[in-house]
Amino acid sequence: MSTPRATKVTPLSGFPEYLPEQRVVEQHFIDVIRSTFELHGFPSIETRAVEPVERLLGKGGDADKEIYGIHRLADDEGGAPGRESELGLHFDLTVPFARYVVENAGRLNFPFRRHQIQKVWRGERPQEGRYREFTQCDIDVVDVGELAPHFEAEMPLVMAEIFAKLPIPPMVIQVNNRKIPEGFYRGLGIEDVAGTLRTVDKLDKIGPDKVAALLVEAGRTTKQAQAVLALAEIRTQDTSFVERVRALGVEHPLLDEGLEALAAVIDTGAAAAPGAMVADLRIARGLDYYTGTVYETQLVGYESWGSFCSGGRYDELASDGKNTYPGVGISIGLSRLLGLLLGKGLVGASRKSPSAVLVAVTDEGSRPASVAVATALRARGIPCEVAPAAAKFGKQIRFAERRGIPYVWFPGAGEGDGDQVKDIRSGEQVDADAAAWECPAADLRPQVVALGE
Amino acid sequence: MSTPRATKVTPLSGFPEYLPEQRVVEQHFIDVIRSTFELHGFPSIETRAVEPVERLLGKGGDADKEIYGIHRLADDEGGAPGRESELGLHFDLTVPFARYVVENAGRLNFPFRRHQIQKVWRGERPQEGRYREFTQCDIDVVDVGELAPHFEAEMPLVMAEIFAKLPIPPMVIQVNNRKIPEGFYRGLGIEDVAGTLRTVDKLDKIGPDKVAALLVEAGRTTKQAQAVLALAEIRTQDTSFVERVRALGVEHPLLDEGLEALAAVIDTGAAAAPGAMVADLRIARGLDYYTGTVYETQLVGYESWGSFCSGGRYDELASDGKNTYPGVGISIGLSRLLGLLLGKGLVGASRKSPSAVLVAVTDEGSRPASVAVATALRARGIPCEVAPAAAKFGKQIRFAERRGIPYVWFPGAGEGDGDQVKDIRSGEQVDADAAAWECPAADLRPQVVALGE
Repeated sequence: MSTPRATKVTPLSGFPEYLPEQRVVEQHFIDVIRSTFELHGFPSIETRAVEPVERLLGKGGDADKEIYGIHRLADDEGGAPGRESELGLHFDLTVPFARYVVENAGRLNFPFRRHQIQKVWRGERPQEGRYREFTQCDIDVVDVGELAPHFEAEMPLVMAEIFAKLPIPPMVIQVNNRKIPEGFYRGLGIEDVAGTLRTVDKLDKIGPDKVAALLVEAGRTTKQAQAVLALAEIRTQDTSFVERVRALGVEHPLLDEGLEALAAVIDTGAAAAPGAMVADLRIARGLDYYTGTVYETQLVGYESWGSFCSGGRYDELASDGKNTYPGVGISIGLSRLLGLLLGKGLVGASRKSPSAVLVAVTDEGSRPASVAVATALRARGIPCEVAPAAAKFGKQIRFAERRGIPYVWFPGAGEGDGDQVKDIRSGEQVDADAAAWECPAADLRPQVVALGE
Repeated sequence: MSTPRATKVTPLSGFPEYLPEQRVVEQHFIDVIRSTFELHGFPSIETRAVEPVERLLGKGGDADKEIYGIHRLADDEGGAPGRESELGLHFDLTVPFARYVVENAGRLNFPFRRHQIQKVWRGERPQEGRYREFTQCDIDVVDVGELAPHFEAEMPLVMAEIFAKLPIPPMVIQVNNRKIPEGFYRGLGIEDVAGTLRTVDKLDKIGPDKVAALLVEAGRTTKQAQAVLALAEIRTQDTSFVERVRALGVEHPLLDEGLEALAAVIDTGAAAAPGAMVADLRIARGLDYYTGTVYETQLVGYESWGSFCSGGRYDELASDGKNTYPGVGISIGLSRLLGLLLGKGLVGASRKSPSAVLVAVTDEGSRPASVAVATALRARGIPCEVAPAAAKFGKQIRFAERRGIPYVWFPGAGEGDGDQVKDIRSGEQVDADAAAWECPAADLRPQVVALGE
């Protein structure tokens, strides 16, 4: 502890912080996410905040721009340290997880499932919905050598269960399989799969006409371009996408594999969580490294905000030279989601204090009696606090009101020196015994609820 | 997500990471700490990981050595950025909290109580029980202008309740009040209070004879030195320390204030948590900035590890030029505590998986039936997972065994195609219905228990 000087304080752009009443919302979301991950058998791990910069850079050189390196201030005089030994803050939870799997492979049981809820950092220029420090909530399953395909259907179901439990507008998980566009393009005679995908990915921004023009410009025939766009337009809640793709008359073994795999995921989804998932053949998320199923998620009514929950299957999450570790994972961008919901006033907490009861203090001499009431209430799991000063009762009630604390307890206020408790919302005041009083379940903890916009 | 190259992986000294079974222990500790903080009415806040370096340096120039600065790798070519604009990782939770209070003063209700459980970073050379990344669990109460003294008695009681709930050896919270040594020294005619405290702080390391010699060397009389040592020897479970100090025959108004304040804290403690607290007049923790009560905490039997929970009262936590904000706080060094407990094998988890049940798969064609069982169990709050492959049942049981999952569910194994569930510890297998089966409460979640050394 050291007392800082009285310098001016200003928020840092891109580093959001919450007031206690907003943090109640964030904690509720994290509690629901964690408990659902655990219900599905995903244990928690945490990884250190830093990795060697060399590992963070990995492939994809442009990640470079986003990474924060760290350095000991005491080393500053000696100039910046060389990159070999340098550490940087992780920018996602997948790179550290891959390293953790390789590092601990001998002590983990495969297939290994884990969840991870942690902050990550990116040195990007902040903009709406983008932060420099933000929280990600990931699940992954990783195996040695081969990974069973049924895990690809399991991942989005866990997320659908979470979305159904949260006080948010409906979420739709869009699922694709990278083998579908790749097989389809190859069946059309298009060799430049990656380039075509990149062009199709611009559909939302520039529209189908310009995408078609770009494809033709890149050497595709008009017919090929039209077929590519026709595939991207297919979006179905059930497995009817298979027929619609077949109707386009393109054939390729990879396309068959992709259609079968996606149909299995959509079938499982339709049975377990009707309406939560759609097959969307436009989804092109990270198709350069994902090798099978890919996921994105839109909040209905806020599609322009992009995806709040994404992931996919990769055949090589990690490798230690001897073994490769294929995996499938999906991640909620919690800070982005809360940024939207709190920013638009779509969600809120019923109170900012965890206390359900404020125990009033009649005079400072009787404070021990008030403390004893609080101890008795806590022993039965009722969160409470004792009034900070033996002020007039009206002032003590206002103290509770300002924090949203629903009950004020008055020791010795009843007949025969018994206690009384007042619901300050209704004004009702009744005799009560700290060893027996039942706090209504809805008042025990702050409630987090959806609000109208 | 980007796939890292297959570079070698080595742990980073000072950045501890846990295996899933160790993380279960850490999560249990955090859950107990958080829920107890909430029972006592402390809402949660989190602050961003970074502060302006200028603020981190504050007073106490030697904090400098411990701070990690951060820099965007993309900026590296331009040389190290100037310190004015530089950001660093926070090294405790008090400095960021002080800044948060000043920044949000208009939106907080005072007295403001909060808890904060977060990682902090220090660029120190790592050694046993010292880390470069570690988790702290803080509570503080802060007010505007003046802070009522009863909060000084409340802080250690919250911690005593936590320690009583955790599967750890007994903790003893040692309490002192800085006014006692200061008043006592002044009453003895010693003007150099800070220098005397620093010398007395060496008692554990060099013993009373050498401390006495150092005091005399610094100009104290032999009689003064003996009185200083006599004060430091006083340690009582009740308020009898007052009489023992009085018996030393020293008088000073500040000493009277300190004795009265400490007696009030010890009285409250003895009433609410007998045996949890002692008055220990040797405790000299941070007496340069604490202004009243100070706390340290020893784990009985592991005194040489130092304090696992410390804090105190400071008259100026923060200041914005117009107002000062006095506060009192106490902090658990969770990573240090877990480092000891896990390192010595004093605590462990009953299993590494959150799953209470593994639902077996008879053949891949019937996987949907197994998924349906899992969905039914989860709907009633029973964590479970479905076997990864339709292997022989013996292999599926071993899959559960290796993860500590206590039950294996066999769909359709009973009479009339009913299900059966096997407790793989006892071998008992009985008919069961996923819509009705009750998982014994002790098996629902991993249990965290004390182990013999």
